[in-house]
Amino acid sequence: MRLWQIDEFPFQPERQLYYETIFTIGNGYLGTRASFEEGFAGDSPATLIHGIYNHAPGQLVPELVNAPNWLDLRVTIDDTPFYLHTTAADILKPTHGVVQGYRRTLDMYRGLLRREVLFRATSGNVVRLVFERFASLHEPHVLAQRLRITAVDGAPEISVESGINGAVTNDGVQHWKDLRTWGNGNAITLQAQTTQSGYIIAMASRLIAPGEIEAFAGDARPYSQTQFNLRQEETATLDKITAVYTSRDEAEPLAAAQRKAALAVQMGYDRLRNAHEAEWAAYWDNSDIQIKGDDSAQLALRFATYHILIPAPRHDDQVSIGAKTLSGFGYKGHVFWDTELFILPPLTFTQPELARNLLMYRYHRLDGARQKARDNGYEGAMFPWESTDTGLETTPQWSDPQPDGSRIRIWTGDNEQHISTDIAYAVLQYWRWTGDDDFLLNHGAEIVLDTAVFWGSRVEARNDRYELRQQIGPDEYHENIDNSVFTNRMVVWHLEQALWLLDWLRDQHPTVAQRLIDQLDLNAGRLDHWRDIIDKMYIPFDEERRIHVQFDGFFDLEYIPVPHYEPRTMSVMNILGHARTTQTQVIKQADVVMLMALLGEAVGPHDVQVNNWNTYYPRCDHGSSLSPAVHAWVAARLGLTDTATELFDHAAGIDLKDNKGNVNHGIHGAACGGLWQAVALGFCGLHLTQDGPAVDPNLPAHWRQVSFNVYYRGQKRHFVVTNPVMIAPEA
Amino acid sequence: MRLWQIDEFPFQPERQLYYETIFTIGNGYLGTRASFEEGFAGDSPATLIHGIYNHAPGQLVPELVNAPNWLDLRVTIDDTPFYLHTTAADILKPTHGVVQGYRRTLDMYRGLLRREVLFRATSGNVVRLVFERFASLHEPHVLAQRLRITAVDGAPEISVESGINGAVTNDGVQHWKDLRTWGNGNAITLQAQTTQSGYIIAMASRLIAPGEIEAFAGDARPYSQTQFNLRQEETATLDKITAVYTSRDEAEPLAAAQRKAALAVQMGYDRLRNAHEAEWAAYWDNSDIQIKGDDSAQLALRFATYHILIPAPRHDDQVSIGAKTLSGFGYKGHVFWDTELFILPPLTFTQPELARNLLMYRYHRLDGARQKARDNGYEGAMFPWESTDTGLETTPQWSDPQPDGSRIRIWTGDNEQHISTDIAYAVLQYWRWTGDDDFLLNHGAEIVLDTAVFWGSRVEARNDRYELRQQIGPDEYHENIDNSVFTNRMVVWHLEQALWLLDWLRDQHPTVAQRLIDQLDLNAGRLDHWRDIIDKMYIPFDEERRIHVQFDGFFDLEYIPVPHYEPRTMSVMNILGHARTTQTQVIKQADVVMLMALLGEAVGPHDVQVNNWNTYYPRCDHGSSLSPAVHAWVAARLGLTDTATELFDHAAGIDLKDNKGNVNHGIHGAACGGLWQAVALGFCGLHLTQDGPAVDPNLPAHWRQVSFNVYYRGQKRHFVVTNPVMIAPEA
Repeated sequence: MRLWQIDEFPFQPERQLYYETIFTIGNGYLGTRASFEEGFAGDSPATLIHGIYNHAPGQLVPELVNAPNWLDLRVTIDDTPFYLHTTAADILKPTHGVVQGYRRTLDMYRGLLRREVLFRATSGNVVRLVFERFASLHEPHVLAQRLRITAVDGAPEISVESGINGAVTNDGVQHWKDLRTWGNGNAITLQAQTTQSGYIIAMASRLIAPGEIEAFAGDARPYSQTQFNLRQEETATLDKITAVYTSRDEAEPLAAAQRKAALAVQMGYDRLRNAHEAEWAAYWDNSDIQIKGDDSAQLALRFATYHILIPAPRHDDQVSIGAKTLSGFGYKGHVFWDTELFILPPLTFTQPELARNLLMYRYHRLDGARQKARDNGYEGAMFPWESTDTGLETTPQWSDPQPDGSRIRIWTGDNEQHISTDIAYAVLQYWRWTGDDDFLLNHGAEIVLDTAVFWGSRVEARNDRYELRQQIGPDEYHENIDNSVFTNRMVVWHLEQALWLLDWLRDQHPTVAQRLIDQLDLNAGRLDHWRDIIDKMYIPFDEERRIHVQFDGFFDLEYIPVPHYEPRTMSVMNILGHARTTQTQVIKQADVVMLMALLGEAVGPHDVQVNNWNTYYPRCDHGSSLSPAVHAWVAARLGLTDTATELFDHAAGIDLKDNKGNVNHGIHGAACGGLWQAVALGFCGLHLTQDGPAVDPNLPAHWRQVSFNVYYRGQKRHFVVTNPVMIAPEA
Repeated sequence: MRLWQIDEFPFQPERQLYYETIFTIGNGYLGTRASFEEGFAGDSPATLIHGIYNHAPGQLVPELVNAPNWLDLRVTIDDTPFYLHTTAADILKPTHGVVQGYRRTLDMYRGLLRREVLFRATSGNVVRLVFERFASLHEPHVLAQRLRITAVDGAPEISVESGINGAVTNDGVQHWKDLRTWGNGNAITLQAQTTQSGYIIAMASRLIAPGEIEAFAGDARPYSQTQFNLRQEETATLDKITAVYTSRDEAEPLAAAQRKAALAVQMGYDRLRNAHEAEWAAYWDNSDIQIKGDDSAQLALRFATYHILIPAPRHDDQVSIGAKTLSGFGYKGHVFWDTELFILPPLTFTQPELARNLLMYRYHRLDGARQKARDNGYEGAMFPWESTDTGLETTPQWSDPQPDGSRIRIWTGDNEQHISTDIAYAVLQYWRWTGDDDFLLNHGAEIVLDTAVFWGSRVEARNDRYELRQQIGPDEYHENIDNSVFTNRMVVWHLEQALWLLDWLRDQHPTVAQRLIDQLDLNAGRLDHWRDIIDKMYIPFDEERRIHVQFDGFFDLEYIPVPHYEPRTMSVMNILGHARTTQTQVIKQADVVMLMALLGEAVGPHDVQVNNWNTYYPRCDHGSSLSPAVHAWVAARLGLTDTATELFDHAAGIDLKDNKGNVNHGIHGAACGGLWQAVALGFCGLHLTQDGPAVDPNLPAHWRQVSFNVYYRGQKRHFVVTNPVMIAPEA
């Protein structure tokens, strides 16, 4: 399986938090970081279950809760606890076990994580331990582990303890109460409840082992034990099957978990894994992009696709994917625009039913958006910048303390309002590609129109035009600015789409149109107002230089040429400091360039696009992981292929090479989705025409071929894009 | 330049010794490890010049001497010394400079090492420093450095001190005496002499800088200083040109170095670099193997080729390449069989004039080999296992102290005698491919024949056959064994070749034949004895299992299945311990498999080859870096393509991924040469036929194409090997 696997070899103790993140497994129901079964100093084990948020006392906002640790498996070899000590043991008189071999492999094709360790006990006996784990894609409430122990040298006595560890926190924040535990036969069970939101979780686990098994309720950690001997060269196999339910899934999660664990054990590890692998194969069959001519791009793209597929909810349309997916505590599991504009498009194109689930999450949260609009004195639906289970705004108002003890006011929850349009964009993109009229008529149109209602009430009539003051565009280094060209222009686009959609509904589905007109009060005056906004919205533009102006006064700020700061290993903001950066033209991420990505030629003629690129690209810090892939996409569209290739490589390294140094906190979901779009929409130029999907490729010079599938109106279309540059030398 | 560069990004302080090795530059005259100009805690700067050996008091053997450090360049920005502190500075009140950006790039195509650092002084001013260095391939006595400093933020005061640091040792061992230093104008000079061997070295260096320059003689370190101011955005360029001569090169190294430095400065950095790059381009034009379909194999192969090209002497046939090339202190710069059977063949095939230099080194050391034979009671030429400038045996008799304080007796200098045949093999391979009769007639034939004379005197007539007792074969885990099948069989081959060669000489060049017959006393009795040995040499073979037996009694040892110890991150010898390993069938490296690599079908019929593989491959520890590539080569020849591919990847990772954890001590030259041979001779099946070179490819499944050049009798032949498996899916 070339270019489907990522290895850790040999053991890299100092990079464990990085590997915990990138080797996360998941099945759309939950994600589990790749912590060791036996634990490791400084590790950060986490299992995050979609929708299980809790607002703990003393915290500014709710967060996705770390579930009890189901990985817990402790092995002892001849009285030596199996543990990856990294301090060198005294070579003549070892005081603890010695790691003599190590390899960990994430098999992305099969959704399996495997660890092999060659370990010498202090007795001198040497064993090989092979751990395997997966979160079943076929049985989303089932988590499976297998441990094979081989006596490589000597005949050791092995004891194994299997637990469910309820003593877990989110980096010290306690979210669970009322822990109850049971141990019985080979089964252990744990139940707990979140402190504020009241969600109940139940986990039931069974151990299948060669020796006799005794189970204990334990204290916050039910556990079972077994013990056996191995002859030299003999291998023992132990399976641990865990089932998990919450009160979001079942009225009686405890009974459900116990029942499911018993059934799964009946099915057995091998059949569970076969079904799991078959499910993965089907997902890859749709979603894999194959790149010939660039092995690292191929691997990075599969890695990105894997990390979009594992958090995507399969059977639940009440949850969505947070910025760090289900792979870490970063951004507390909150849902941002990252989902709709970065993570969702690959699903829209290749797994439309999963995309629909994510959009339904927003539909179900319309009430929260309407409340946010009302609270701010507006009409319609104003989606929160950060969203959780409630749909209410959950952006914290203050940052964590800075080195000098101060906290910085966070304004995005107040003023980064473009998210309402981003969601409308995703709805329409989904509908146009899938032709899912059912979704549009019953859910999507209401999102598009009620967010349009919001904008109608939000714009300010000033200076004989419409303006939007106190905004934050994608470039978050410049807060509370007036007339973000990104936002203003996207609002025009949004209102145009809303009017068009209403016309289309009137024509094709008059009953639905009338229902929405009545429900959302889309009276003639309101629609006229929208037309007037479209007409008179202020789009900051410098006629002389023929460029869009990112916001009012942008060019009055100090100019700092970002390329002069290469090869920086920190953001320009960190180099200059936050206070000074806000007074410069250094921008955090694609902003005007993002507008170009979303609207393409509609932004302006070719010379304006090129001027925009030449203006904003050298000012961009890429201080956000969202930025490089969007730049790659736009550069590819502008024919700047070499630059696009460089930016693609930058984007590809954000998680895999830990370019930004923060993979510890979780996968950059938007960077993953951006990478996919940079290839499909950027390099391959995938777009919709009257006749359906088409490509307009502009591949990196060394890529020979890209092939991928997209769904168009329920049909799978296969594209093979060949690099014309490569044809001659290949022949 | 895709797949020609290796990057360190960002800064990896804990891997500096690794990067020092792999980023070594060189020009066939010397090699310089990639230490920082300003130094770094725990670094190991080294410049190793071919042929400059010294035997220091208290040392068991002579070693290649660490030359004075010409990299020395110290920069101060506003009173902040430029240094890569790795402890985080207090972010609010930095007490030392902060590294804000870092990238280091080895450009293998151009033979350039570049480092870019973004650095903030405590004054708050930010500068970018770009260091570049090369050891001129065009002017082998010239070493060039350039430093560009840009004021990125603020207007700093810069001072620069450029030195030649004579206070150098080989890991604490002092080799220099009589250091003399001079400073004058912009020129600094240093002269010193090795303590025992008496080689004189002179280094002269000039600094070209924007400010005024003052030079000082210093104390064991002549240095020059300059100082200047930069405006914001301004860039200053400083060049440092160093010339180096030894008494091996010139009678007056001091004058030569000073003259050359002055001339090189006249030529200027840019023209020096242009000439250097042009030279590199010509070498790559011959030596580059291009692999399509496997980026990491391509990069690894270029890396291996680079590290064979940089230590290969251009203008000197009195020196050869040590096991760790010129990139580290490992194996003390001694020359082993690594050169003739691993490093040399790629040069024979692609740079025959360099291969000839290396073989001439052995020719010039025939007297040492003859002395070794005499000292041991034999005739002819018996080459030393470890060789330096004298040609005498320089293998240490004892190891460094073990953890328990004991030393292990090293027997290879006594008993690893196959090296004499390995050298003969390399001579004949060189001659058959190059058709260099001049070399053969005047030098090569004498090597082949006088080492044959040695073997004639060495074999023991016992049990109605000839035996060789007290040997060490390639598998060094088993010392002082009897009848190494590798050695016995290679001796037969050697004597066959010697007889054939003598016949050919008699036929084609009777005068030369007669001269050699007279000189080496190749009388009829001696030649009859050779024929008798060929006839009756004992080749250990198990008729029942149809396998070669590695040595007498091998199968009586304990059998340990090596694959059971996967995924080991240490050798099986380290796991089992040295004492026990010697009592098992675990072998260090390719031994019978090495025989199969060298002799191919001549070893035996196909079934015997397959049986040999199936027997010895699972017993092999690959405890030597020489092993995986040879296994890949033989596996490819046997059609075991998947296994060959795995082994190739293993070999490719020895230096680049530091698989064995000892790259700190220097490049594994033999692994580099083995990698080249695994591709050319293994996967591509390059071989000689009556009509010249031909290929017989068996490529890894995912490789699409391999192309390379080989010289055959002075003509460059270009081969393009396409993978038939790949043709259909590509079309």
